Amino acid sequence: MQAARLHEYTDEMSEALEVEEIDRPELEKSDEVLIEVSGAGWCQTDNHIIEGMWEAYAPQDLPMTLGHENAGIVAEVGEEVTLVEEGDPVICHPVQTCGICRPCRLGEDMYCENSAFNGLTTDGGFAEYLQTNERAVIPLPDGVDPTEIAPHADAGITAYHAVKKAARELNPGDTCVVIGVGGLGHIGLQCLDATSGADIVAADIKAEALELAEDLGARHTVNSSDEDLPGAVMDFTDDEGAQQVIDFVGADETTGLAPELVAAGGDHHIVGYGGHIHEPSQALVDGEFAYRGTLVGKYAELQELVALVDRGDVELRTERHDLAEINTVAERLEHNEIEGRAVITPP
Amino acid sequence: MQAARLHEYTDEMSEALEVEEIDRPELEKSDEVLIEVSGAGWCQTDNHIIEGMWEAYAPQDLPMTLGHENAGIVAEVGEEVTLVEEGDPVICHPVQTCGICRPCRLGEDMYCENSAFNGLTTDGGFAEYLQTNERAVIPLPDGVDPTEIAPHADAGITAYHAVKKAARELNPGDTCVVIGVGGLGHIGLQCLDATSGADIVAADIKAEALELAEDLGARHTVNSSDEDLPGAVMDFTDDEGAQQVIDFVGADETTGLAPELVAAGGDHHIVGYGGHIHEPSQALVDGEFAYRGTLVGKYAELQELVALVDRGDVELRTERHDLAEINTVAERLEHNEIEGRAVITPP
Amino acid sequence: MQAARLHEYTDEMSEALEVEEIDRPELEKSDEVLIEVSGAGWCQTDNHIIEGMWEAYAPQDLPMTLGHENAGIVAEVGEEVTLVEEGDPVICHPVQTCGICRPCRLGEDMYCENSAFNGLTTDGGFAEYLQTNERAVIPLPDGVDPTEIAPHADAGITAYHAVKKAARELNPGDTCVVIGVGGLGHIGLQCLDATSGADIVAADIKAEALELAEDLGARHTVNSSDEDLPGAVMDFTDDEGAQQVIDFVGADETTGLAPELVAAGGDHHIVGYGGHIHEPSQALVDGEFAYRGTLVGKYAELQELVALVDRGDVELRTERHDLAEINTVAERLEHNEIEGRAVITPP
Amino acid sequence: MQAARLHEYTDEMSEALEVEEIDRPELEKSDEVLIEVSGAGWCQTDNHIIEGMWEAYAPQDLPMTLGHENAGIVAEVGEEVTLVEEGDPVICHPVQTCGICRPCRLGEDMYCENSAFNGLTTDGGFAEYLQTNERAVIPLPDGVDPTEIAPHADAGITAYHAVKKAARELNPGDTCVVIGVGGLGHIGLQCLDATSGADIVAADIKAEALELAEDLGARHTVNSSDEDLPGAVMDFTDDEGAQQVIDFVGADETTGLAPELVAAGGDHHIVGYGGHIHEPSQALVDGEFAYRGTLVGKYAELQELVALVDRGDVELRTERHDLAEINTVAERLEHNEIEGRAVITPP
Repeated sequence: MQAARLHEYTDEMSEALEVEEIDRPELEKSDEVLIEVSGAGWCQTDNHIIEGMWEAYAPQDLPMTLGHENAGIVAEVGEEVTLVEEGDPVICHPVQTCGICRPCRLGEDMYCENSAFNGLTTDGGFAEYLQTNERAVIPLPDGVDPTEIAPHADAGITAYHAVKKAARELNPGDTCVVIGVGGLGHIGLQCLDATSGADIVAADIKAEALELAEDLGARHTVNSSDEDLPGAVMDFTDDEGAQQVIDFVGADETTGLAPELVAAGGDHHIVGYGGHIHEPSQALVDGEFAYRGTLVGKYAELQELVALVDRGDVELRTERHDLAEINTVAERLEHNEIEGRAVITPP
Repeated sequence: MQAARLHEYTDEMSEALEVEEIDRPELEKSDEVLIEVSGAGWCQTDNHIIEGMWEAYAPQDLPMTLGHENAGIVAEVGEEVTLVEEGDPVICHPVQTCGICRPCRLGEDMYCENSAFNGLTTDGGFAEYLQTNERAVIPLPDGVDPTEIAPHADAGITAYHAVKKAARELNPGDTCVVIGVGGLGHIGLQCLDATSGADIVAADIKAEALELAEDLGARHTVNSSDEDLPGAVMDFTDDEGAQQVIDFVGADETTGLAPELVAAGGDHHIVGYGGHIHEPSQALVDGEFAYRGTLVGKYAELQELVALVDRGDVELRTERHDLAEINTVAERLEHNEIEGRAVITPP
Repeated sequence: MQAARLHEYTDEMSEALEVEEIDRPELEKSDEVLIEVSGAGWCQTDNHIIEGMWEAYAPQDLPMTLGHENAGIVAEVGEEVTLVEEGDPVICHPVQTCGICRPCRLGEDMYCENSAFNGLTTDGGFAEYLQTNERAVIPLPDGVDPTEIAPHADAGITAYHAVKKAARELNPGDTCVVIGVGGLGHIGLQCLDATSGADIVAADIKAEALELAEDLGARHTVNSSDEDLPGAVMDFTDDEGAQQVIDFVGADETTGLAPELVAAGGDHHIVGYGGHIHEPSQALVDGEFAYRGTLVGKYAELQELVALVDRGDVELRTERHDLAEINTVAERLEHNEIEGRAVITPP
Repeated sequence: MQAARLHEYTDEMSEALEVEEIDRPELEKSDEVLIEVSGAGWCQTDNHIIEGMWEAYAPQDLPMTLGHENAGIVAEVGEEVTLVEEGDPVICHPVQTCGICRPCRLGEDMYCENSAFNGLTTDGGFAEYLQTNERAVIPLPDGVDPTEIAPHADAGITAYHAVKKAARELNPGDTCVVIGVGGLGHIGLQCLDATSGADIVAADIKAEALELAEDLGARHTVNSSDEDLPGAVMDFTDDEGAQQVIDFVGADETTGLAPELVAAGGDHHIVGYGGHIHEPSQALVDGEFAYRGTLVGKYAELQELVALVDRGDVELRTERHDLAEINTVAERLEHNEIEGRAVITPP
């Protein structure tokens, strides 16, 4: 089958992956599932993996097929699988978990001690077929197109997961600042609007992103390239600050806003991870705020997000590309030229 | 009356405060309360205030009487006070709150928008008399000595508050690391032992502190001056890490341990505030951990701590000093020569 | 001034209250506030009070002016009041709380140990003027009409409070059943839609109520006079049951549905209180569900509800009546002839 | 192998089970595990099953081997099992769960949609061998004796589960009432003491039970056969009531105490299930309390309980009996003649 594989880390996106012919995966364990891929979303993290930025955090054995936002049709199932059968359309959580370790037993399957992460630690979905397991697949409701929904498998649940943590702390009349209305941010904003009664202030440096934010439910927008974000938020909140901040950028400049932006007792959620945090301990103590790192969402959260999509509460802007064009997509994202989310479709 | 007052910021502890004669405070509002001070604890924060470290965070109008860990006997009450009457022994929460603003209404009185903080933004208890209000005093149970319990008014509730946040996330079999077994740490450790079934690992650089930690309920101790703390914790936890870390030091070196120390989904609570946090956003994302700043505890938490003291679950090591010796105490704490907590007693 | 007062308990609504001339209240304490009433909502609980049903639960000293859903204009303030001044439009939480007892300090002001409940334990707002206190009034945002919003002071926050408890347990894809789409139910339904991503199933015995429910956000409606509610919910939820049920009726027949209606681990919230619970302990154990009583909401929850109204997320259907017609309103509600909520306006 | 099996429902405990020779179970699926039983606790629920009281709540296919509190040595494992191997000592959670359904994915494995409950819906451990699965077994720490710990597999986690729900709501200074200090109650009391700083009031009708309660950490005891429990609790709590009540009896008389016993906002947890709840809805509304049913604890909670046992925080009083004497044990428990917990040991 055709697959787009990373052979060595590089900063040169135009030659990042090699599209080549490899063997179709074979099922070995009783709970494994083989998916015929309909679509696989391209993610900023794919660029980071290509650059070698995840090497220190996750075991990677090159060459490896990338692609962690996958959806498709079940092609084959292990002998003890009961959840799905051949022909079922599914979205694939990127992580195959064990269901046995204590984190899995607590429902915290992202902390699984025996996991494989498709497209990060094992072969992913930029290919015709993908091997995953029963605990990673979610059957799609009627009328939901696998190719369209694929990016929710990572972009979607990462945004949803952060929003869920923030929404739990938000009441009507509170303010939540969303920093960055890109691939993740525009999904997060919709999830927030659907699940909380808080006022959303959206910040970005692009005018179109802010227009999109307004369409999707932001009550106020701030162009942080020419406006002072903390000042604008203090005005909006009568000097209280925002109870929650979801930072989809995670750069030095955005994490550094927290002491001026977050209300006492609030949280600055780190979703994007380009930069660093540099703050005196005293700033966190004085404002009793937290920097909370936030990972990919859980399997159960992907179920919840699929329910929101099925209700029409979350829409995703996608553009489709053939597997053969994959390095062009990598390059365009690097230059910030993708609107919404690119989905790679196999031949 | 006699009072020990700060006239200007200085690094010279031997001449920090001036013990002088000033007018006894007069009650003006219907909810005010005048306390005849029995004892007032000396706190590391007093040294920080003297050095000017709080000037940027809290409005201070010098000269000002310091002292925020106060207990004593009610000497006079405003005309609408019902909670206490003349002669009642009380411990004083350091913050006089309004009871009207939204944070107060949510029970989050440390975020009060109209507060006065005795010894930080208004006159404190290193004096014969202290003016506070009804919402700041807690009547003491029979048999509890105000002079003995005074340091709980700040050291105690700060430790308790951090522990309460951590304990909510801890289950039996989990591990909580306590960094720093000094004035706050040795109280926190006892609170943790009384309110959770988690295993406590205590870290300090002094052997006596670690002995004390063992007496007070630590299951394992690590001398971090000669042992690798993350390594020791990984051994103790079978490579899972600690679900919660309470950092009573807050130095660059201690906050920097988080990525190696904290289990996935866990928290590193910042209580001490000497240093900084410097971490890549990606570290927080990958381990999904949080840095959570933690402030002085709430009034209701001081009630809870008094209940623990009354049950005999928390003991405090104190030494008493006359008001006249107050700068000697300041100096000795600066040189790390106070064991337990110094309490200043007025003439 | 004119006031509508209860002189003795009766089942005869046409003669329930006497509209008579009494003295205008005088302010005595520094935190008291006098309101010129713009409107006061009539509530099912007023009928229950008239019938003597609250005598065993709340101290009542007849004659007493009823009316616990009040809004108006500040006419006079005690000398230490800072939150409002003469001329401010406000909505009044029905309970004047002390701000001193432990429940108040925890933010649980409905459990205040020193409270007065206007229209239930002390004079209420079916009158020209109402005496309350600073901790009970909430300034209204510009453009919000006090007469229109008055019923939110009790009907609104009771519904909102129940919804907030339920919403905390609900995820997208979950189901919440709302039993009874009347005065409280139609507010609750809108609050639920605004603050959660769960699917709402609304049940009532009147066709118009179900049409209203659909307009306001219910995804499915069940006419329980001719359809089996548990059966319909099991169909809707693929045999899982509803994660949460909010029972605005509280009759024997509705509480008795819980074992068949509620999903494992879920809650049946009792808001209405006409009837009884009769269930074997084993039913609660087997399904691990709870019956959770739910009281009037807190002051902070009324702030949150005002924020939802201000955003346009919750609308209220009201009809206005002169104080002189008050017993007609009592009678019509008794016969279930009021659509939406009746608001009494003083002369 | 020998097994004690129920052939028909009966009230006659002396002939309840037949000890007979049946085939040893054979493993069929890749995740199954065969246990050589060391000990199996006898539980009040066994008497209830024999009487037919669970027939309406759980599918039962007679004859069936009873016994749901099992521990032993792994005798054989399915081919994909990784958690344990032959020879490992384990305690067995009574429920074999699927790990696939949404409740399992949320960590709520007691609500598993595809479960088998050993000794309730499938063969249990009053036998030489027991078939279970990988998701039900927990390896024991060194030095923990399987026969001694067996009753924790159901009695223990049921008590622990209820305590964990209660402890989450308890602060130091609060009061928790434990009703019934028998098999479950005496475990619950120790768990509560180990994981919360609340004061425990224990109630029972036997003097020895109350002595035991005092030994195990109760701060106050009430003999409810001759003392008024609500009155005693109101005295103990200065008329506030108990924030939490754990009712290990669940009889009409004990559930009926809630309105007088539970503080505003508190919970009455139903663990025992002999009787009924009969209360007016208004009582729950007025006190805003809840009746919360509570089921067997989760797998992860059994891990937590094993950790408490390993620390020495929970001790269990047991007596051992041969499999051949099993009906005598049934009879003696029926007559309330077992002190602590009876453990059945196979030949």
